[in-house]
Amino acid sequence: MNYDAFFKASLDKLRTSGDYRVFANLERHNGNFPHATARAEHAQKVTIWCSNDYLGMGQNPTVLNAMHDAIDACGAGAGGTRNISGTTQYHVQLEEELADLHGKPAALLFTSGYLSNWAALGTLAARIPDCLVLSDALNHASMIEGIRHSKAERQIWKHNDLADLEAKLAQQPLDRPKLIAFESVYSMDGDIAPIAEICDLAEKYNAMTYLDEVHAVGLYGPRGGGIAEQEGLMHRVTVIEGTLGKAFGVVGGYVAASAELCDFLRSFASGFIFTTALPPAVVAGATASVRHLKASQKERQAHAERVAEVRARFDALGIPHVENPGHIIPVIVGDAMKCKFISDILMKDYGIYIQPINYPTVPRGTERLRITPSPVHSPADIDALVAALSDLWTQCELARKPMAAQ
Amino acid sequence: MNYDAFFKASLDKLRTSGDYRVFANLERHNGNFPHATARAEHAQKVTIWCSNDYLGMGQNPTVLNAMHDAIDACGAGAGGTRNISGTTQYHVQLEEELADLHGKPAALLFTSGYLSNWAALGTLAARIPDCLVLSDALNHASMIEGIRHSKAERQIWKHNDLADLEAKLAQQPLDRPKLIAFESVYSMDGDIAPIAEICDLAEKYNAMTYLDEVHAVGLYGPRGGGIAEQEGLMHRVTVIEGTLGKAFGVVGGYVAASAELCDFLRSFASGFIFTTALPPAVVAGATASVRHLKASQKERQAHAERVAEVRARFDALGIPHVENPGHIIPVIVGDAMKCKFISDILMKDYGIYIQPINYPTVPRGTERLRITPSPVHSPADIDALVAALSDLWTQCELARKPMAAQ
Repeated sequence: MNYDAFFKASLDKLRTSGDYRVFANLERHNGNFPHATARAEHAQKVTIWCSNDYLGMGQNPTVLNAMHDAIDACGAGAGGTRNISGTTQYHVQLEEELADLHGKPAALLFTSGYLSNWAALGTLAARIPDCLVLSDALNHASMIEGIRHSKAERQIWKHNDLADLEAKLAQQPLDRPKLIAFESVYSMDGDIAPIAEICDLAEKYNAMTYLDEVHAVGLYGPRGGGIAEQEGLMHRVTVIEGTLGKAFGVVGGYVAASAELCDFLRSFASGFIFTTALPPAVVAGATASVRHLKASQKERQAHAERVAEVRARFDALGIPHVENPGHIIPVIVGDAMKCKFISDILMKDYGIYIQPINYPTVPRGTERLRITPSPVHSPADIDALVAALSDLWTQCELARKPMAAQ
Repeated sequence: MNYDAFFKASLDKLRTSGDYRVFANLERHNGNFPHATARAEHAQKVTIWCSNDYLGMGQNPTVLNAMHDAIDACGAGAGGTRNISGTTQYHVQLEEELADLHGKPAALLFTSGYLSNWAALGTLAARIPDCLVLSDALNHASMIEGIRHSKAERQIWKHNDLADLEAKLAQQPLDRPKLIAFESVYSMDGDIAPIAEICDLAEKYNAMTYLDEVHAVGLYGPRGGGIAEQEGLMHRVTVIEGTLGKAFGVVGGYVAASAELCDFLRSFASGFIFTTALPPAVVAGATASVRHLKASQKERQAHAERVAEVRARFDALGIPHVENPGHIIPVIVGDAMKCKFISDILMKDYGIYIQPINYPTVPRGTERLRITPSPVHSPADIDALVAALSDLWTQCELARKPMAAQ
């Protein structure tokens, strides 16, 4: 076999289907986010409208100071796995903060949200004898890969469909171990799971629940504990998984659960054991961010206001977007090539950066612009976004929604 | 099923076998590493002898300044996946540095070494049609999990055994895709693979080679390119995988290979695509470290001297250690309980921290202290280590090696 010819042919297929990804090369401006410099042939000032730094915590001075201080105190890296010289007071404190955030006895830190899902689901499903995993059809790739890795039996239930979930649960013996895996806010559509009803079913059929709150922690609930906190349901969920890389603005993932479950993952999850611990500075920054958002409401309030404002402005101009109760505004284009074309023009002609979201992140035919307003987007930023999209909708002869009665 | 009872019973089994891990809670002292404060019931000053920050680069001022500067310039986190707003000039530059370090056309950055092995091997073996993976018997957990995840056929060859590898290769059709996966320096025994001879076999039988150099990059070769650089073999290896979390002192993993192969992983590896990019500050620190160790020999020279000195001192007192051509000094205890006991006394009575290495990191019956001297260990640190181990060998009536003729 000619290996490089195989790689090249695989990449050519992506180019033909419009799914080949070109990364925008950005320099964020600290203190001036969402503004950044994009570097291509020449440098260009842009406004980022697709970041997962939902609250701008990545430039919060408290977070940055905590990182600076930890670098000065402890240096760059952790120097080892958590077991072999890589655990610091910073790691221990962050796990305590996260347990407290979710009202759980314990939490366990991973180097990324991807790894926390992959390792936690993979380890639970593989090691609990005869475990059946019931996985929502739209779960994130990291959950799917973890479940697949476990080799446990898996059944996929229709997205957010309680009747389908119950039908699958009811077929199983009551004493068979079961794990219901789902998300609160789904990243690409912004819709929200019926957590209370899923917990009802879990209790009725003796299942564990595993809830991914990566697009909700920091953003929802009086202390940023996520949708489960907002709805008073944290105590009913077995495992809450979250990230430090989105609303908290840094990087890393975690689970919060019972002391036994966290200790079980700490002791058996290969992806936790055999990896270098996060740098103390990263952990210190994340701790500062979690603490800040436990106490402060202003970021969450401003965030909700900006989201509502962008939606209202889109509605007024008939720019179609997917309705949902959350903070993510998907504008469906429905074609990979066209989606990339619009994104390129937004960048080139308007200085607006919105990455096209294509397959495999979303199903083919639902290619989209995924817009994430934040408290640091100014009224002028919103004006520019709305004007640019309206221009493009006209230029490209894209369909508008019937406008609300004036 | 009572889930928490199951978790508790699983943990109790670890306690009974002596394999339950207790993490030392450390605060490294920047500028004074390998010295740290251990926090248990009370704080205690300790000297770390088991870190993978092999060269002390975690406290190198150039590295720390680069991290401070990037925080000031860009903030805390990257704010998204590499594809969705998370690629910065820092990421692009580090990939260029790493490609250059290994003399390859391209490199691809992952959030950890674990993930780079898991995602690269998992993706290559799964997507290359009918790929056979030939895996060294002592490969790291991250490689094993990646290969397992791929569901490709796997054959395990005896550790560093060329005859066994060739026998397995010779059985296969020449045109069947094959991937030989191995490490240069094996972390727990410190022995080194016969890279040239493995490349000979790969060429003869039309196989790709995947070489994990995580315990060698920064440490070996005139520019820190690893054992393959030292032996003039980088151009013969298909994929070189390395880490930024050991000798480079920060965190993160990468592969260096052809442009097509890196682009293939960039485009198809779930563990690359669906995860938040490393923070700019981490990437900037790693870049500074790689650049520094390309030019500077003094850390590598001092490192080799310290390793030789510790070995000679152990030999003079008959403290048995595994001979190997590398920098890792394994002292085999051979019993999980005894290994932990010695480690506990070293910490408590001597202020020396060496984590016991037990199953599953090493096979049962080979439990060990794994000692990693570094340029920042002073003569007084070495004196204290040697005296403490000699005391303990007497106290615990452990066997000594026949001493060299005086």
